[in-house]
Parts: sequence; C-alpha cells; structure tokens
Amino acid sequence: MSEILIKDAYALIDGVIGRHSIYISGDQIAGIDRMPEGFQAARTIDGADRLVIPGLINAHTHSYMAPLRNIADDMPFMDWLFKGVQPVEDNMTPEDAYWGAMLAIAEMIRCGTTTFNDMQMHIHQTTKAVRDSGMRAVICRGLVGDEYDKDNYRVKEAFEEMEDGKDCGRLSFMLGPHAPYSCGPDFLRCVADLAKEKGLGIHIHLAESVTEIENLQKDHGCSAIEYAEEAGCFDVPCIAAHCVQISDHDIGILKKHNVSVVTNPASNMKLGNGFAPVPELLKAGVNVALGTDGAASNNSLNLFHEMSLLALIHKGTNMTPVCVGAEETVRIATENGAKALGLAGVTGKIAEGMKADLAILDLTEPSMMPRTDLLSSLTYSANGSEVDTVIIDGEIVMEERELKTIDLERVYHEIEKMSDRLGIGNKQKINRK
Amino acid sequence: MSEILIKDAYALIDGVIGRHSIYISGDQIAGIDRMPEGFQAARTIDGADRLVIPGLINAHTHSYMAPLRNIADDMPFMDWLFKGVQPVEDNMTPEDAYWGAMLAIAEMIRCGTTTFNDMQMHIHQTTKAVRDSGMRAVICRGLVGDEYDKDNYRVKEAFEEMEDGKDCGRLSFMLGPHAPYSCGPDFLRCVADLAKEKGLGIHIHLAESVTEIENLQKDHGCSAIEYAEEAGCFDVPCIAAHCVQISDHDIGILKKHNVSVVTNPASNMKLGNGFAPVPELLKAGVNVALGTDGAASNNSLNLFHEMSLLALIHKGTNMTPVCVGAEETVRIATENGAKALGLAGVTGKIAEGMKADLAILDLTEPSMMPRTDLLSSLTYSANGSEVDTVIIDGEIVMEERELKTIDLERVYHEIEKMSDRLGIGNKQKINRK
Repeated sequence: MSEILIKDAYALIDGVIGRHSIYISGDQIAGIDRMPEGFQAARTIDGADRLVIPGLINAHTHSYMAPLRNIADDMPFMDWLFKGVQPVEDNMTPEDAYWGAMLAIAEMIRCGTTTFNDMQMHIHQTTKAVRDSGMRAVICRGLVGDEYDKDNYRVKEAFEEMEDGKDCGRLSFMLGPHAPYSCGPDFLRCVADLAKEKGLGIHIHLAESVTEIENLQKDHGCSAIEYAEEAGCFDVPCIAAHCVQISDHDIGILKKHNVSVVTNPASNMKLGNGFAPVPELLKAGVNVALGTDGAASNNSLNLFHEMSLLALIHKGTNMTPVCVGAEETVRIATENGAKALGLAGVTGKIAEGMKADLAILDLTEPSMMPRTDLLSSLTYSANGSEVDTVIIDGEIVMEERELKTIDLERVYHEIEKMSDRLGIGNKQKINRK
Repeated sequence: MSEILIKDAYALIDGVIGRHSIYISGDQIAGIDRMPEGFQAARTIDGADRLVIPGLINAHTHSYMAPLRNIADDMPFMDWLFKGVQPVEDNMTPEDAYWGAMLAIAEMIRCGTTTFNDMQMHIHQTTKAVRDSGMRAVICRGLVGDEYDKDNYRVKEAFEEMEDGKDCGRLSFMLGPHAPYSCGPDFLRCVADLAKEKGLGIHIHLAESVTEIENLQKDHGCSAIEYAEEAGCFDVPCIAAHCVQISDHDIGILKKHNVSVVTNPASNMKLGNGFAPVPELLKAGVNVALGTDGAASNNSLNLFHEMSLLALIHKGTNMTPVCVGAEETVRIATENGAKALGLAGVTGKIAEGMKADLAILDLTEPSMMPRTDLLSSLTYSANGSEVDTVIIDGEIVMEERELKTIDLERVYHEIEKMSDRLGIGNKQKINRK
C-alpha cells in the first residue's frame, strides 16, 4: 500500500493554518500529527516551505469546452453563443470531448483542483478522462427537452454512462436538466421525478441572465427559482449554477430546500450577466460553492483566480471591505463544494478518514512573503502557480509541477489537430481592430 | 555590447500578435525581423513556444509596503488604515523600505512588470532598489501638508532624491502631493507651482473613497477633481490614481487637461471603494493606465491579475460583454502606462528604437492552449506565472523564472527579520473566527 508522509508543513485544518504532519495511507488521510500503527512512508514530502490545503472543488464546469477557450470573446452574448460557441461545439466529436476534458483536467490539477462537477454532452468521455488522469468528478449528461419523452436519447445516455461508471470510486453522477430556457415544465418535472425515483441529485443552470428571467416571467409568470421548485428539482439534493438574477424570495426558497448555489464570478461578469448576491445567500445560510464554468466563458479553469474574484467583487458592489472574507472564500472553494456535490464526508477537508485529496503550495514565491496570514495569501495573493504537488485519492498526480498521469504533449497534439479541424486555430495574424 | 536575439516568437506589435524575430542591441530594440548591421547575438532565445510582450507598467504602487501584505484584511477601512497599516508603517526604517522595495520588485519582475510608478516615504531606498535590481521606475516622495512651508522637509527630501537619482537612466521623478484629504489647498497650490517651475509631473491620489469626496464637498464645496484642478495640479503632466468617485463633469476636466488616470481594480474593491468608471473615461478619450496600488490593499503586485479584473468587472457592472476588451486591456497595461509616466517614446511598445523592456511568456501551460487568440489568453487566461524571461533596458533580469539581479534568499531573510521586529510575523495559529 502506498504510504506518504507530508512532514511538518503549514496545513489548513478546520479553518486554521498551523504546522502539522499528515500521514496518507492508501487513498485516505490516516493520521494528523499522529503516526498510524505500522505506517511506513514510501515517500516523504518536506513541508518546510509548503502549505497543504484540501484540494479545491470546481463545483460547476463543462470540461469538454476547454478547446473553445478564447474563440469568441468581447462580443454580445447572443453572438457569443450562436455564432461563436455553438457552431463549433456542434462539430465536436466524442473523441474531441475526451481530449477537451483531458486539457481541462490538466489545467485544473496544475492549479490545485482535485474534484470537478461536470455537465457534458458526450457520454463516456469525461468518465474516461477522469479514469485516465486520476481526477475526482461528479458528472451529468446535459438534458434538454420540451414535452417529456421517456425515449429521450439524452436521458437514456445519462443512465448508460452511470452504469459504465459504477466501478470507479472517484466518479459519481447526477441528472443534469440544462436550464429553464432549455427544459419545458413537463420535461423538467419528469426529470425531477426520475431523480427522486433513482435517488440522484440534480445539477442545473438557474437564473443566469436577465433575458432568462424576463422570458420565464412572461411565459410562465414565475422566477427561475420558482420554476425549478414547481417542477420538483429541489425535492432532491440540487446544485443550482449561477443564481445571478434572484430575489430575496428566491433566496428563501433555495434555503428552504437546502439547494446548493454555485457562483461563477468570472463567467457571470465576462458574459455581462452581473454579480450573484453571494453575501445575501451566505447570510440566509444557503450553501454557496464556487465554479469556473466552461473555458469558453471564463477563459480559465483556475479556482485561485475565482477565489480572488469572489473575495473582491462583492466588497466592490456592496462598498464594504467586510464581506466574503478570506476564510469564508477558502471554505466556499473546499468544504462547501464537497457538500454541494454530496461528497461532504469524502473530500474538501483535511481530517482523518477523509480521502487524501490535497494541494500543496510552494511558499517561496515573493507574492507569498511575508507569511503573515496564509488564509489571506491563499485568497488575495496566490495565483495558482504556487501549487507544486497534488494528491488525489492518495495518488500523487502532480509533483514539483510535473504532471504524473497526463501526457501533456499528446494532449496538446490532439488539441492542435482538433483546433485546425474545427477552424478555431491560430487567429494571431488577424487584426482585431 | 550585449546583443540578444529572440528568434521567431509570437510577439505583440501594434496591437497584433504575429511571429517575429526581435534584435536587441545594448539597451534598445535594434531591429524587428531585420537584423541590424554588424549584429552578433551573444544570446539567442528560442521563440517557438513563446510570446513576447512589452514589459507591463504598474502605474501606481507603493513598493515599500510589500512587507505589509496581509497584515490587515477583511476589516473596516478606518481600522485597516489607522489600526492595521499606519502603526506598522510608522515603525518602518529606511532600510525596511529598501527591502520592501526589493521584495516588491522581485514580485513584479516575476509577473512581467518592467516599470513601476512609486509613491514612497523614505528617500534613497526605492532608488537604491531600482539601481540594484535593474528595474525601471518613476518615483515620487509622498508630500503632505496644510499651509505651505518652503522648509517642508518632505519637499526638500523630494528634490534631494532627484539630485541623487540623476545618473541612472532607468529612474525618473515626479512630485507626489499625497491626496486632497492630506494636502490643504494652499500646500497643494504651492506644490503645483513648484512642479511648473521645475518642469516636473505630479502623481496624486484623487477621488478614491466616498468619504473623501463627501468631506471635500462639505469643506470646500467641490469635487476632488475640481479641488486638484483649482490648485493647478493639472497644469503639468498629472497622474491621478483611483478616480473612483467622479462625475461626468469631472471626466470632462480630466480630459481637458490630459490627465492620466490610473485605475486600481483590486485595491478599490478590497477596500470597499467600488469601481472606477473606466468605460466612461475611455469613451471620453482619457488616458487610462493600470496599477496594483500597494501590497497592503491588494495583496498582490501582479498586473496579470489586475488586467483580468479590469477586463471583467466593468462587463459585470455595465452588464454587457462588450466593454473594456482584451486588446484595450493589454494596451492600458503597456502603452497607456508609458504615456502616463512620460515614457511614451521609451517603453511600453515593441518597436525599433524603444528600450528593450520585454516580458517573454512560456505558452506551454494548459491554460494557454489552444493558441486561438493570444490577446484573449493574455487578458483572461494568463495568471502571470507564464512569464519566464524578463528583459529590462536590454538586460536579462529573469531567465527561465530565475531572478538574475536579486538575491531572493537574502531578501526573504531581511523580510522575516523585519516582520518579527514590526510584530507582523506569523499569525497562522490565530483562529480568525
């Protein structure tokens, strides 16, 4: 059995950073400052200038979209979606989705993310990438429809993939009705019923844009949150991505049903959708997690970037420095993410018996000096490149910035081929003016 | 003479990224795609997977404050200033300011910044750090006062430092009246007169907080911009940092006098001051540059982080994806900064005859793939750690992420000693709850 000792490092435990030794046995954290019986370290990581944190949890993304990074920036939302992203997305093959997911996973691991929550289009591809890379993920096949049809091929695919993923402990699954504007009330209700019947959670986009809520109000006389509640989406554990355009009444509904909200600051700003009312959600006691969204609307999958945005933007919009502080931000990106994904006892914390999902930061960058308050450093100063070692499920997947499970050269080769084929290759020589 | 060839790299020239070879001779860019006569490369940098950009320009910071990073976060503004920052700052010695500036410069170089505009308290310290590190800087001694007194020791010090800095081509100087709330009208007028008389520019904080403009309105019946205009600050080249709380009328004044505005997105959000009206300033034709402010209010000196904030936040506040785009963002962090600092013909652009101030990015990070649109990559995907080589004034100051002119270990040793003495050392074991 693989046993790893992280010796005398700074470590974030229960919201406090102190110096600790962490003993990893198999896939678990077997001891903290207390060597488990019979432990024999096959590998010792020197903690002197290092900070160990729970691996970050990207609670909303679309990994297959990584190759669509930068293809349609600085343009109106409808052009972005219908002229920029969709025509390319429609031409992506399942194999493209696999290599896209591999690129996304490589990027996430390099910035300390150990678990992601993925809504995708091509079954068996993210699952394969997760198996190959050693990553942890919760996966749902995006479902769209108007009237419910039990032969809906996407629903069938969702269950087919779950069956196939059963044997991998790092994989779990949800049902993924896409959004109120792409799922009619009848379809949404039937998907919710199916979730209840099968004991599955739901992952859905809600209240992302003004257009979405205006149309719902016009067509159905309700808010996006009310629409999802009415359909029964909140009767099972539910992850609601975005929740930008919501009222106090909506927040009450989310709280009542213990819905987890995933905020995606970069994506919401970049697409001109605004700022989710995160301080209000936190005040109401809603579980808020953090996501990057897909690379086409971010254009990064770096949760350190997202943490700094989360901790800064609400101070700006609320005009107070006392709002979404450093400790809360780090908890949102770790514990809260695990809770949202149904992995509260599994990952998101450094504690005995939890899976060994850890990101280890090298503190010798100038931006991490002096080490006055490392929770602040994590939130406001770090950019993600400080992460030098990543452990997932007890396995070292990156060591001193070298990826151990992913052949980056091969990934890049496939991404370049794909870019050429999809016509999204090098645009450098085009003058954007 | 030191001659360097950057061979066949992506390079940002006139707002467009293409593949170019850049010939550096002495401190200058001597040729682009055209070898100067008699050129003999002592060093060739392979450009295959690299992107060369003009070194970034941090147009507003306080380098000596780098050791004050993270000492007072997530607290009300007045507590931050009077209980957190000032008591520590007051105990800093000139030597502390030197090592603070060295830490700041190390951090800036590592993220591709080659010029910074510094307002400081201890003369001869930033200048010494600039000499020792090979950095380029514009420096002013912060000036405060009520009635004007020609024997004001700070004003004397400002001129003393200029005299001392004359022999270093990478140094230039301005006068630095601190802010309307720390400079009375009489004092400010006399400093402006002095600037006119000596042919110097002015670097001042203006309209940073609501409190500042409310007090000015109450005490003087004018806005911060009107206050500075009335005192004559805009009769010389002027850099106005922040300009968050300004009206359309104020923007008209700034434009009329060709004042350069430095926006500091992270600092303005973190201290709860809000968002500067950057799109409105740009629309009015005001020269907008980008700054990090000091490390105590950011807590990073990474202009890549600042570029991403600049490109994102105004899309959020204006609820449109078409606003402060990637190309404009990069120009703000380079050309516009040089223009603000009076260095328009010197740095901020890759062109023959300009100083060789360059940042070279390694494009082999997953976040930089695919290379569809590298202007977008620079703005939305990069985090600064991609910068692997930095050239300032023709000298390689970082190569493959190794600093060539700064002994980081020595800097850290001094920073740790200083932290202990100032009582801002390790707070990790304090539970912030």
